[in-house]
Amino acid sequence: MHTKLYVVKIGGHVLDQKSTLNQLLEDFARLPSPKILVHGGGKRATALSRELGIETQMYEGRRITSTDQLEVVTMVYAGLLNKNIVSTLVANHCLAIGLSGADADLIRANKRPPNPIDFGWVGDVTKVADERIQRLLESGFSPVFCALTHDGKGHLLNTNADTVASALASAMSRRYETELFYCFEKKGVLRDAENNASLIPQLDRETYQKLKDEGIIHSGMLPKLTNCFEALDKGVKHVLIGDSTILRDKTAGTTLYL
Amino acid sequence: MHTKLYVVKIGGHVLDQKSTLNQLLEDFARLPSPKILVHGGGKRATALSRELGIETQMYEGRRITSTDQLEVVTMVYAGLLNKNIVSTLVANHCLAIGLSGADADLIRANKRPPNPIDFGWVGDVTKVADERIQRLLESGFSPVFCALTHDGKGHLLNTNADTVASALASAMSRRYETELFYCFEKKGVLRDAENNASLIPQLDRETYQKLKDEGIIHSGMLPKLTNCFEALDKGVKHVLIGDSTILRDKTAGTTLYL
Repeated sequence: MHTKLYVVKIGGHVLDQKSTLNQLLEDFARLPSPKILVHGGGKRATALSRELGIETQMYEGRRITSTDQLEVVTMVYAGLLNKNIVSTLVANHCLAIGLSGADADLIRANKRPPNPIDFGWVGDVTKVADERIQRLLESGFSPVFCALTHDGKGHLLNTNADTVASALASAMSRRYETELFYCFEKKGVLRDAENNASLIPQLDRETYQKLKDEGIIHSGMLPKLTNCFEALDKGVKHVLIGDSTILRDKTAGTTLYL
Repeated sequence: MHTKLYVVKIGGHVLDQKSTLNQLLEDFARLPSPKILVHGGGKRATALSRELGIETQMYEGRRITSTDQLEVVTMVYAGLLNKNIVSTLVANHCLAIGLSGADADLIRANKRPPNPIDFGWVGDVTKVADERIQRLLESGFSPVFCALTHDGKGHLLNTNADTVASALASAMSRRYETELFYCFEKKGVLRDAENNASLIPQLDRETYQKLKDEGIIHSGMLPKLTNCFEALDKGVKHVLIGDSTILRDKTAGTTLYL
């Protein structure tokens, strides 16, 4: 029987509203250790790009990462957001340590091939240093990962935060009984994206496939749910999607099953 | 007899020239562990401020850190520079881990009182978590600190990189035989700032006081040397100032004595 590990991903509007974010960080700080936080920050990066006159190009919701855009996301994800999250967590008595995948070679990725779409400096995770992450956890630290990885040859790569969370949870499930939480602004997986009352409390892969075929689950939820089911395939014990209340009440949100 | 620890601070033009920086990082990667790197980045922060239309105000070479300026330095120091340095070190087989003082509550500071000059979000170091830093070193990691600290209440603070290096070296000298290297673009402490041939190879406090009184050592070198002598006072074994060659040849540069 392994020790329990929480991997919590926060993203979307949750990051933009200071009061929601602070509440969520308080809740994260109160979770028992060991635990890992993963955060996105795309909206803030887009805002900074605009201020700097750098064009933001997206393809199916994913950022095309030019050299200029890589500088922007490195500044916003690893700098501004990561360090402010860390300092808030530390103020809440959580020994947070802010990291990118480059730090201590914790998450390596391959630059995505330029065909059929050239995403630029975007990486697909190839290796998570689970033993070194365990060393940090056992030293009493709570890693806070931003959505950057590296190629091992000195180049940073932009990697989707949902995927980083899934890859971390999957790799750590070799050493821990891992629970993965995706926190965003919605109650969970909804039948009607605009109606929080249409929450699907439980979702297995077969039902997911059916709802997807029927067009009930669509657009941004599809890659998120792909990440979730992949994590379950790779040994993650539980996956939960919902708003920040899922950190306090596990019966809230959508629980995913194989 | 304690284990030897290197604390290396890099700053000035060294950070701006990619080839010089890469050579220096290769040299740092080759130093035996345990070791700590500290970096500045003021010039890059000033450039980003300009691009964003944020005014940079300095007082005696120190940045007055408004809320906007704090965002800029957090992005540049902890994001852009720190993560690129880390990924280059990792590519050179050094298990670098990029940190601010907020991470794991490693370096706390007090916001500087607004009199006589209001420096804004600038912090004076009050506490270095030497035991936790030792834990990281003993786990095989090489901490790479940017020049940010925090107040323990959720606020980041801008802190001079020379001072961060001095405070780290001083605190760690309780646990290690610590050597502190300040690397910048000059050969060391010079009699004539424009002439590298005027290097002063050795400098004790008495001679320093004399050269300072005569106006031979002046302006930017004064706070740097204050940091150096403070570190020696607090138990740091050796302090060396010079260009990147001091990492390969300890007879280069200026060696400081009490």
